[in-house]
Amino acid sequence: MMQNKLSTNPYKGARDFYPEDKRLLKYIFNHWRQVVESYGYEEYDAPILEDLAIYQAKSGQEIVNDQTYSFTDRGGRELAIRPEMTPSVSRMVARKFQQLTFPLRLYSIPNLWRYERQQKGRFREHWQLNVDLFGDQSQQADYEMIEIADQIFKSFGADTSMYQFKVNDRRLTDYILTDYLMLDEAQSYQIIKLIDRFHKYDLDDFIHQIDLLINDQQRQADLIEKLLRILQTNDPQSLPEELTKKELFQDFISLFQNLNKNIPNVIFDNSIVRGFDYYNGFVFEVFDVDPNNNRSMMGGGRYDNLVSLFGIDQLPTIGFGLGDATVHNFLLAHGLMPDLPPEMDLFYVNLDFDHYFERDILNQIRQAGVNVFEAQPNLKMADQIKKALKKNIPFFIVVGDQELKTKRFQLKDLRTSKVYDLSINELIQHIQKNNSKTLK
Amino acid sequence: MMQNKLSTNPYKGARDFYPEDKRLLKYIFNHWRQVVESYGYEEYDAPILEDLAIYQAKSGQEIVNDQTYSFTDRGGRELAIRPEMTPSVSRMVARKFQQLTFPLRLYSIPNLWRYERQQKGRFREHWQLNVDLFGDQSQQADYEMIEIADQIFKSFGADTSMYQFKVNDRRLTDYILTDYLMLDEAQSYQIIKLIDRFHKYDLDDFIHQIDLLINDQQRQADLIEKLLRILQTNDPQSLPEELTKKELFQDFISLFQNLNKNIPNVIFDNSIVRGFDYYNGFVFEVFDVDPNNNRSMMGGGRYDNLVSLFGIDQLPTIGFGLGDATVHNFLLAHGLMPDLPPEMDLFYVNLDFDHYFERDILNQIRQAGVNVFEAQPNLKMADQIKKALKKNIPFFIVVGDQELKTKRFQLKDLRTSKVYDLSINELIQHIQKNNSKTLK
Repeated sequence: MMQNKLSTNPYKGARDFYPEDKRLLKYIFNHWRQVVESYGYEEYDAPILEDLAIYQAKSGQEIVNDQTYSFTDRGGRELAIRPEMTPSVSRMVARKFQQLTFPLRLYSIPNLWRYERQQKGRFREHWQLNVDLFGDQSQQADYEMIEIADQIFKSFGADTSMYQFKVNDRRLTDYILTDYLMLDEAQSYQIIKLIDRFHKYDLDDFIHQIDLLINDQQRQADLIEKLLRILQTNDPQSLPEELTKKELFQDFISLFQNLNKNIPNVIFDNSIVRGFDYYNGFVFEVFDVDPNNNRSMMGGGRYDNLVSLFGIDQLPTIGFGLGDATVHNFLLAHGLMPDLPPEMDLFYVNLDFDHYFERDILNQIRQAGVNVFEAQPNLKMADQIKKALKKNIPFFIVVGDQELKTKRFQLKDLRTSKVYDLSINELIQHIQKNNSKTLK
Repeated sequence: MMQNKLSTNPYKGARDFYPEDKRLLKYIFNHWRQVVESYGYEEYDAPILEDLAIYQAKSGQEIVNDQTYSFTDRGGRELAIRPEMTPSVSRMVARKFQQLTFPLRLYSIPNLWRYERQQKGRFREHWQLNVDLFGDQSQQADYEMIEIADQIFKSFGADTSMYQFKVNDRRLTDYILTDYLMLDEAQSYQIIKLIDRFHKYDLDDFIHQIDLLINDQQRQADLIEKLLRILQTNDPQSLPEELTKKELFQDFISLFQNLNKNIPNVIFDNSIVRGFDYYNGFVFEVFDVDPNNNRSMMGGGRYDNLVSLFGIDQLPTIGFGLGDATVHNFLLAHGLMPDLPPEMDLFYVNLDFDHYFERDILNQIRQAGVNVFEAQPNLKMADQIKKALKKNIPFFIVVGDQELKTKRFQLKDLRTSKVYDLSINELIQHIQKNNSKTLK
């Protein structure tokens, strides 16, 4: 029967979630759900397999060519395991476009797969909150995205000194490159890739890379100096007047000022362009300001054209994504990780085999919402207590003839070693008042 | 920009979950979670991709050869999208065998993929509650499985007239075929496949199929009559005395009687053998008794040998699986589907652009747990009301200069058209008392 022993490891770059890991994941998901549902977002889901074509159409080239898990099914259909959720939700909105009522607020917490090299906080499988608002092109919709992201971080106990929003608009960047700096299309395409990595480059190296792409005339017109001045500006009102007088910039400045009224940790950063090809308006990222975890934690923006791939006229859309590992690292870096005890409340030992099948008391306790772990029969009492302690179950009880006759129970709190003599109703109430959830 | 229009349909056999579908799924999941957590089960999860080898080792041949989504990754590794959860959880238990405390109660609600022909209630992707108890070989552990399954159906409002448990033990079947009917190994293998489909065959056809597999001597020993008598017996005590006197049968009869003390809708059915190769003890299935939905809804049993594939000594294990579509069909067949209104409570219209950025009132309402859907700006009031009604949001409010000054709000209940003049705290309380969740 024994073949070669199989490996017990999960697939490389993916994670097993043992109960303690799953509790952490649920803690994060619950906070996400609570905040986005308070904004009227409704949860949806889509199959983890989609036609490869929906990613080829619009996702960044790197994702499709190098990072997608794609294969052909037994019917010859080319499929991909979703590397991101935005194409799926765009497809779903297009599919029921006529029946849906806009504006439409949708969220999901899908698992996504990318074939990438392992590094800290990066997994081949991760979970990502996706929040999208369809059919609202107002400044308020842009504002709402930042407010929700801000509320999510606050819900975990973070304060504004721990993270920072960097906001931009892809149309500003396009205008700056094409109309203000007079770059041609090929140059803009190359330079936008460099701008995307502006904060990762050494400044001299960045200047050198730009210099390689421009001509003498552009060099003499101080193109590099102009670009650097823009990239180093954190307030859109400080941009050159030639820009700020334009309506496009005026609108952005209005949004920026309104954001700053309520959310002080928002700065302008024209290097925020987002990797995906489909963004076409307001874009943003959130950075952890902790020097040991200084990185972009999440991002999003406007992508008004994605539903049009599915035959629907352009639909104003804005959304963002936030990953589970990102949040976990952030909580660790800032000491915000709570203790998450298991959901089990009571370790219950039946003294006799026959009494096991008298289930009334147990049913009553469970139906009151108390989670009861029944002990394995025929172990020494000291071993039962050891097991309850190892499992971190707060309450312990032994039930035999005596207890069933008198209807009095000796409830032991394993955290304090105190024993309480209680009726069944008192026992339920005592546990409900003093279990791990209540004391948190 | 417009390429060929992409299809808006999900991948064949898989489902999109729009908010109304997702609410139904969450309704089912929440009941599952509540019941199994009340028995001290803890939630885990594993990656949806696993090494193909873990299914090849033990899952039924049909599943691996014909129904698994398998492919080779960019590093040459043979992978499968999980068709079932049991190999994954066995791998996980083996991986941390030394640190885990047994008995161990684990559950998960994974999505599973099988490449199968579409038919009612069968999808290529479905969600399945998986409940497993490791390290307890007692009768109580077998009993617990049936009790949990029973509690799950009851939690949805079902009563015992709607469903029936059929229980058996693979060791009884093996003993009957090998020792009682004296079939050789090849015959047993063939006949067990026929027994598995006993209730699907016309009786004459079943007899004919068996007849093809046996020899004259067996025929003359009334093998077919003996087998049929066993397969048609619903009480293990009515089995031939040659069988019931054996310890194996005595143990099973004891379990059966204890089950019947509390759960009347349990019958014995020796044709329940379960498709998977790994079952080796107590097995069961639950049947819908509705004539329009008469089918096996779920099943499970003992599989003590699966962790040994991962290098661990045999570990007593029992578990079951229950699919989302199965439960949905059952609820529909028995009129148990509740109305599931959206989680949104309040449709909120800002009268003026500038007031939008005064967020105190909204923050207060949201932080009290009321879910607020903010209207798109600049629509006629009649259109706003239409949208709120279409979205099935119960409460409606308009906030302008007047409301912000007086701190009094006109809250409209769209279900009754009544309007209430309320302070902010009264408004929160009124919604909390009268929202869709409270009235359910």
